[in-house]
Amino acid sequence: MARRKLVVALSGGIGGAKLALGLSRILSADELMVVANTGDDFEHLGLSISPDLDTVMYTLAGLDNPQTGWGLRDETWNFMESLAALGGETWFQLGDRDLATHIERTQRLRQGVPLSRITADFCARLGVPWRIVPMSDDTVRTRLRTDQGWLDFQDYFVRRRCEPAVHAIAFEGAASARAQPEFLSALRDPALRAVIICPSNPLISIEPILALAGLREALARCAAPVVAVSPLIGGRAVKGPTAKMMTELGLDSTAAAVAQRYRGLIDAYVVERSDASACTGLDIDVVPARTLMTTLAEREQLARAVLAAADALAEPVA
Amino acid sequence: MARRKLVVALSGGIGGAKLALGLSRILSADELMVVANTGDDFEHLGLSISPDLDTVMYTLAGLDNPQTGWGLRDETWNFMESLAALGGETWFQLGDRDLATHIERTQRLRQGVPLSRITADFCARLGVPWRIVPMSDDTVRTRLRTDQGWLDFQDYFVRRRCEPAVHAIAFEGAASARAQPEFLSALRDPALRAVIICPSNPLISIEPILALAGLREALARCAAPVVAVSPLIGGRAVKGPTAKMMTELGLDSTAAAVAQRYRGLIDAYVVERSDASACTGLDIDVVPARTLMTTLAEREQLARAVLAAADALAEPVA
Repeated sequence: MARRKLVVALSGGIGGAKLALGLSRILSADELMVVANTGDDFEHLGLSISPDLDTVMYTLAGLDNPQTGWGLRDETWNFMESLAALGGETWFQLGDRDLATHIERTQRLRQGVPLSRITADFCARLGVPWRIVPMSDDTVRTRLRTDQGWLDFQDYFVRRRCEPAVHAIAFEGAASARAQPEFLSALRDPALRAVIICPSNPLISIEPILALAGLREALARCAAPVVAVSPLIGGRAVKGPTAKMMTELGLDSTAAAVAQRYRGLIDAYVVERSDASACTGLDIDVVPARTLMTTLAEREQLARAVLAAADALAEPVA
Repeated sequence: MARRKLVVALSGGIGGAKLALGLSRILSADELMVVANTGDDFEHLGLSISPDLDTVMYTLAGLDNPQTGWGLRDETWNFMESLAALGGETWFQLGDRDLATHIERTQRLRQGVPLSRITADFCARLGVPWRIVPMSDDTVRTRLRTDQGWLDFQDYFVRRRCEPAVHAIAFEGAASARAQPEFLSALRDPALRAVIICPSNPLISIEPILALAGLREALARCAAPVVAVSPLIGGRAVKGPTAKMMTELGLDSTAAAVAQRYRGLIDAYVVERSDASACTGLDIDVVPARTLMTTLAEREQLARAVLAAADALAEPVA
């Protein structure tokens, strides 16, 4: 029997990166591909910024800032201080070390290097052996229709601190954007072990990925089990506006409602134990687990639970 | 008798900024305009960098780094360290605080704001009351023909540490670049007190300014005395490749040879006392002074000597 090998994890920022880190503790370099949302990417101060991609990269490099959940540890803020003195825009915090990522990425993008190749090179240089792949090398931009009009994602998320009420979400460019080729061919690989949808905000972290042309079909056709992890615990997100946004969009802010959102795509759903009984009538395996990942051990433990759920569903490869 | 008021100082980087600082100790906001060379400007890492302009600005803001002569005091280098880790170009040092100047300037230039207006705003925000004006809002680029071929200025100056032998110098764009309008109208002002050519490298700091369309004519026609300060003391520059470059171009590396270079343009020449006797046959006033500016007091003292030389030449305005 051939060994099912590669695990593909779809991730947004902080929550997704935590599970990705747990998976990286178990899986070797050729066993894990983390696909990061790039719908949050934006241009700011002339720089191309990829917040989710960087959070995943910094986390797997062991360089993440455990206090903020974004940016780099041991960061300094002299650039921001001087920028403020010159009257520059300071609503988006860019640390001195973090700036190097954005400046070097922007340079290489301008030279025509695809984002996935830049990311692979950065990972190699930062000692990250696992593959981290942007969902697409094409531009996708998440925009939100709110009570303050249509807003760019970071304008809503950072500048306005998620305060506007969200009425609709659009992923501009997604319909014509091609999923990153390595990502797509992993989904088509008959020996793929699992696709894991990390506990990220479904509306703004996972659905931009799902909105890529042909991606839902590729997931539906994929031979491996697809397992999602609930980002909500007792109706609340560990971090971020998931619950608020779901309510504003007329959805229940529950683990069950997230599973409904993924209906037809996932084969198993890993939820916090106390939420499991409410996830009924889904026609999929509901796997109770501890999903709160405060410690590194908990990240690894959840990763093991998710992989076990996937492996339980998998038919052996002939 | 109307009072002659405005002093215009033409400056490169370090040496020029020292005398500009001396002048700023004596002259009020509406009495001093420092015109900085922008032939050294370049694009690096996607940023528009103006080394001489910034050195003058930082110096008059009291933010200059007295150790290096360029960049900011209390600077940190975390950006450069991280850039190196990502494989970025590190031959040109950009401090974390200094980066704010370049990023914000680049942003505004892209929005179509002229360099002179950006500089005026930066100066206002940094509490610099004197006018600092780029020689032109148009692009001029100093290039050097060397034994290693034609080189961009910073490639020669920083990356190759002035090691190549220089055979010729070109100021690309200068012939069609317009001198910054405030600068030009100051030269035309009949009540201009003086034009001071700071002790900067004549070949690469002052001559790019002189190469601007109509600038030599404007200086020749200008009602005020034009006084230059020698950048060489005993045949050597305090800092930088002036002597080496003059020799390579077949010139004597002496104060007298610099004066020859300015012949027809200047009315007085301020030189280190020991060099004065060699400056003969120039048909201009040769003013011996202490030109080495180690202390702040020496900067102010030289500024006073230069202004006295100018005022001695001036005819009273009716």
